[in-house]
Amino acid sequence: MKLISYRKEGEARFGAVVGEGVVELNRRFEQVPDLAAFLAEPSLLPQARHVVATEPTDYPFASVQLDAVIPNPGKVICVGINYVAHAEEAGRKVGEFPVIFQRFAETLLPHGEALVRPKVSEQFDFEAELAVVIGKGGAHIDPADAMDHVAGYTCFNDASVRDWQFHTHQYGMGKTFRKTGALGPWLIPAADISDYRKLVVRGVLNGEQLQEGSLSELAFDIPHLIAYVSKALPWNPGDILATGTPSGIGFKRKPPIFLKPGDVFEVVISEIGTLSNGVIDEA
Amino acid sequence: MKLISYRKEGEARFGAVVGEGVVELNRRFEQVPDLAAFLAEPSLLPQARHVVATEPTDYPFASVQLDAVIPNPGKVICVGINYVAHAEEAGRKVGEFPVIFQRFAETLLPHGEALVRPKVSEQFDFEAELAVVIGKGGAHIDPADAMDHVAGYTCFNDASVRDWQFHTHQYGMGKTFRKTGALGPWLIPAADISDYRKLVVRGVLNGEQLQEGSLSELAFDIPHLIAYVSKALPWNPGDILATGTPSGIGFKRKPPIFLKPGDVFEVVISEIGTLSNGVIDEA
Repeated sequence: MKLISYRKEGEARFGAVVGEGVVELNRRFEQVPDLAAFLAEPSLLPQARHVVATEPTDYPFASVQLDAVIPNPGKVICVGINYVAHAEEAGRKVGEFPVIFQRFAETLLPHGEALVRPKVSEQFDFEAELAVVIGKGGAHIDPADAMDHVAGYTCFNDASVRDWQFHTHQYGMGKTFRKTGALGPWLIPAADISDYRKLVVRGVLNGEQLQEGSLSELAFDIPHLIAYVSKALPWNPGDILATGTPSGIGFKRKPPIFLKPGDVFEVVISEIGTLSNGVIDEA
Repeated sequence: MKLISYRKEGEARFGAVVGEGVVELNRRFEQVPDLAAFLAEPSLLPQARHVVATEPTDYPFASVQLDAVIPNPGKVICVGINYVAHAEEAGRKVGEFPVIFQRFAETLLPHGEALVRPKVSEQFDFEAELAVVIGKGGAHIDPADAMDHVAGYTCFNDASVRDWQFHTHQYGMGKTFRKTGALGPWLIPAADISDYRKLVVRGVLNGEQLQEGSLSELAFDIPHLIAYVSKALPWNPGDILATGTPSGIGFKRKPPIFLKPGDVFEVVISEIGTLSNGVIDEA
């Protein structure tokens, strides 16, 4: 099942994509205001599957305006240097703890909307990633129980402004510029993915594949990332965990490749789908 | 004037502290839902001053339950290594750009509520700071215009979990643990402070002063911090900019001093007031 957040007639809604159509779920589950709240209650998913299996679609997918899968998550937690080959290209070693950094939720954008290359930099780079969407919240989660907190998966482009990222020893604003975090197009429920470690993430620029990694290569796997963060701060429904990018980023290529207006970058993940975004210059 | 966010009869409200009482402002300004929205519209402040000058208080200050000055800001942007003497104790030099990091809004707590020492660390440290509250939003702000975007000032304790802060080369979760960002007690409007550079920040542990710095010492001053961030991401009303801590943090003392249950830490800022928080262990 493909779950989306979207606007229709200017109103925020959520639903499921079925073929070329959309089954609107918010009017069938009026007790929950948005997709994050829907995911917080695992018993609703089988009910939604029943609706989708038995009722016609409400309108064409082409008629809705997608939002980021979770439009305004409480937190977006990102992981750096989490594929061994990418750690090597970045000149870093994988250590004892995961490299965690943050992105402001207001920087997210949906599938189909253009990434914005900032006025202040030409070093605008791509990072194809698998994003985990949290369902059930919790603190001090044991790695053995962590997958129970995963509502599902989606594609993420952690587009990064490289010169700003290295202005100081902290990434600072470099990973949280306006309109640089693409998230979508839809959430695939965790139950529909037999083993996330078999997923393959690809980054494709203008049709050419530049990044590829298997989730089996993660230095810190999803259960351990969820557990680590949960010692510091509780996870809440709809929170996003971006699992890191494989090797092949533009910045480390010789010569480097940076995103420019007119480009299209796709994050392609097996069993999940394709997140596609153009690039425009900041107005 | 002292502006506060608080709860009364379980309901979120905002108002002004006058003597031992509170003038409730939200019921006089029903078009704005909260203090952040009130600050977004500078013309409301003179109207509020008129109300406060002419009407009696509604109830005692002691009868309200304070929230963080802005209870759920869109973003909390922190600055590290921004006092030269603190940079020296941290073994860092002030560079060309400010060191920016982020705190999740959900980690904030008000004056009077206890800071929570985490289960997973005993290296729980204090950082007394001046926090700027943004009024008028904006992007690409010129330093010469930046002070027009400052609604006011409050006290901030950027309590930090030192071992976690240095798990990797990024601060990660170390500066965004649950219940570690104290913000309050109230906002003093920018118009009531003749020159912020004359403010003095003090950190006081159990009555003993451990930190002191003048805002005139900032390596990157408030206009330049506002301008720098605004190139990457627009400021919105209610956003918080924490300007950094002066020297004297516990971690760098010999022997080190860390916060423990029963302690009381105060952030005292001239012309603003005192933010006081106890310390408890995580349950």
